[in-house]
Amino acid sequence: YLKRESELFNLSNLPSETRDGKLIHLKANIEVAEELDSVHAYNASGIGLFRTEFLVMQSGQEMDEELQYSAYIKVVKGMNGLPVTIRTLDVGGDKLINEIAQRDEKNPLLGWRAIRFCLERTDVFRIQLRAILRASAAGPVRIMFPMISGIEEFEKALKILKGVKRELRSEGIAFADEIPVGCMIEVPSAALTSDILARRADFFSIGTNDLIQYTIAVDRGNEKITSMYEPFHPAVLRLIKIVVDNAHDAGIPVGMCGEMAGDPMAAVILMGLGLDELSMSSFSIPEIKRIIRSTTILEAEEFLGTLMDMKSFKDIDHYVREWMEEKFEFITG
Amino acid sequence: YLKRESELFNLSNLPSETRDGKLIHLKANIEVAEELDSVHAYNASGIGLFRTEFLVMQSGQEMDEELQYSAYIKVVKGMNGLPVTIRTLDVGGDKLINEIAQRDEKNPLLGWRAIRFCLERTDVFRIQLRAILRASAAGPVRIMFPMISGIEEFEKALKILKGVKRELRSEGIAFADEIPVGCMIEVPSAALTSDILARRADFFSIGTNDLIQYTIAVDRGNEKITSMYEPFHPAVLRLIKIVVDNAHDAGIPVGMCGEMAGDPMAAVILMGLGLDELSMSSFSIPEIKRIIRSTTILEAEEFLGTLMDMKSFKDIDHYVREWMEEKFEFITG
Ligand SMILES: [Mg+2]
Ligand SMILES: [Mg+2]
Repeated sequence: YLKRESELFNLSNLPSETRDGKLIHLKANIEVAEELDSVHAYNASGIGLFRTEFLVMQSGQEMDEELQYSAYIKVVKGMNGLPVTIRTLDVGGDKLINEIAQRDEKNPLLGWRAIRFCLERTDVFRIQLRAILRASAAGPVRIMFPMISGIEEFEKALKILKGVKRELRSEGIAFADEIPVGCMIEVPSAALTSDILARRADFFSIGTNDLIQYTIAVDRGNEKITSMYEPFHPAVLRLIKIVVDNAHDAGIPVGMCGEMAGDPMAAVILMGLGLDELSMSSFSIPEIKRIIRSTTILEAEEFLGTLMDMKSFKDIDHYVREWMEEKFEFITG
Repeated sequence: YLKRESELFNLSNLPSETRDGKLIHLKANIEVAEELDSVHAYNASGIGLFRTEFLVMQSGQEMDEELQYSAYIKVVKGMNGLPVTIRTLDVGGDKLINEIAQRDEKNPLLGWRAIRFCLERTDVFRIQLRAILRASAAGPVRIMFPMISGIEEFEKALKILKGVKRELRSEGIAFADEIPVGCMIEVPSAALTSDILARRADFFSIGTNDLIQYTIAVDRGNEKITSMYEPFHPAVLRLIKIVVDNAHDAGIPVGMCGEMAGDPMAAVILMGLGLDELSMSSFSIPEIKRIIRSTTILEAEEFLGTLMDMKSFKDIDHYVREWMEEKFEFITG
């Protein structure tokens, strides 16, 4: 075990490049600036998902802009020039803040959450966007909106962002005007219209946790049916493929920030699907990097091709586990 | 108004055929045998959806086979040789029975419902299948399973059905051995793998209410976001198109039994998408028939083609309403 840990650690300074030379960015998911030590320890090439629910909750009913700004700037500076992707408030669903928690929704996962909340509570949304934009003056920041369901929602959010930029400009406050703005792809309707969204977005980030839940209509928190939550369901693989192809056709990069991105069993599949970036808990990076570094894209595409011809989740899951365990004897999963 | 009513009624004995001669079956959704008078008054060409939740609830904890059988046989005989499509227990979600109602699910729409319940509570499921099969000896019956998410679930249900048939055979009880078995397509993963399902199913029935809810991740019962429930969302239209094309490639018919099927505004779209059968409340049949009889498939396909090139729900919705109201001045909207 010790040997394995140190082997993985030795990879730290090597790039996360496939054996045939494609760089796949391995980034970190974080929630608080305190995690930056570990982000650096595992050599993440950036923050792929900065969750802001905790932060916004902390900032209280007044939605303290300074408190948010100081957290963002701390992370941006702490990353020394590596890109930081900040997801705007993803409240609701299983992530509650005070106001939302008081609402009594029958199906919170299909409810008033994330961008739906922000597009109505523009007061909350604008304060967050101000804080993010201000931080963007200090280093490379990207914004992404959660739970986008279609182009109209995305354009509404872009319009508000534009208004906030205008406001900052008139106040003489610095920010990065060309800040990249991305779409989380986690609602099936967004995946199915990703060709349309790709023309307006600067990047995609696939949120597999929600995407899988909606695609298979399964609340993974429901113990009666958790076994139905199947990342390798052929429908899920097909949907991811659609998103990646649409992103690449439009010339934008596509990442993934759900749990699937950090699952060693999924790594070769995701290489084959063409993901450009995977964001995960820092400590998962070395193992994923090792898999990427010992596999070619060609190999991954052939592997994926075999899976895509299979008809059931069970067949796919079984084949993946056998293939991965044979090829990578260090995988314990 | 009276004139309009009588005009629609005069259509009653004419077939529901497009102007260029494609027959699109217009069937009725029912819940109890008492609705048959109205089914005949509006000349439905069969029952496209016989909901059995009420019936099974009535039959109590003991799941009375005789009570279910007598209800099924009454409908089968009452339809005089027209086909009756019985949906097996679609419990859970927003449809509760005692046992399920006691469960406290955080997201019942993404929960332990319909076929998921039946595949575990095979005691309940088998009794219902016995009653349906017995009724199939008296006239054309079709079975369909709700909430199928993929081929494995469908095959599990088929296996149980096979076992029940064997049991009846050994008891010397008559039933239609060749009874057609269909898949409801209402979970996005089923729609996305409908090519695989089509090889095993005898027919599809698209359940738009749930399909739209999952695809856009919106609980239409949640008043904060009901406006997001968009039957003409480009993702929904694309998904229906995938299902219809996959069904036809495999040579099986595909119907629709959600509210969209009885919505006059959607009728030409559904013709263009290639639906073979629409099932709705009986009283909606005349208006839908009138639209079908005054439109050609070619016209509908051109209309659909225009919509499929549009990027947003709002554009599509606006165009559909204008086009439909101009062409069919009798539509009240
Ligand atoms: Mg999410
Ligand atoms: Mg349903």
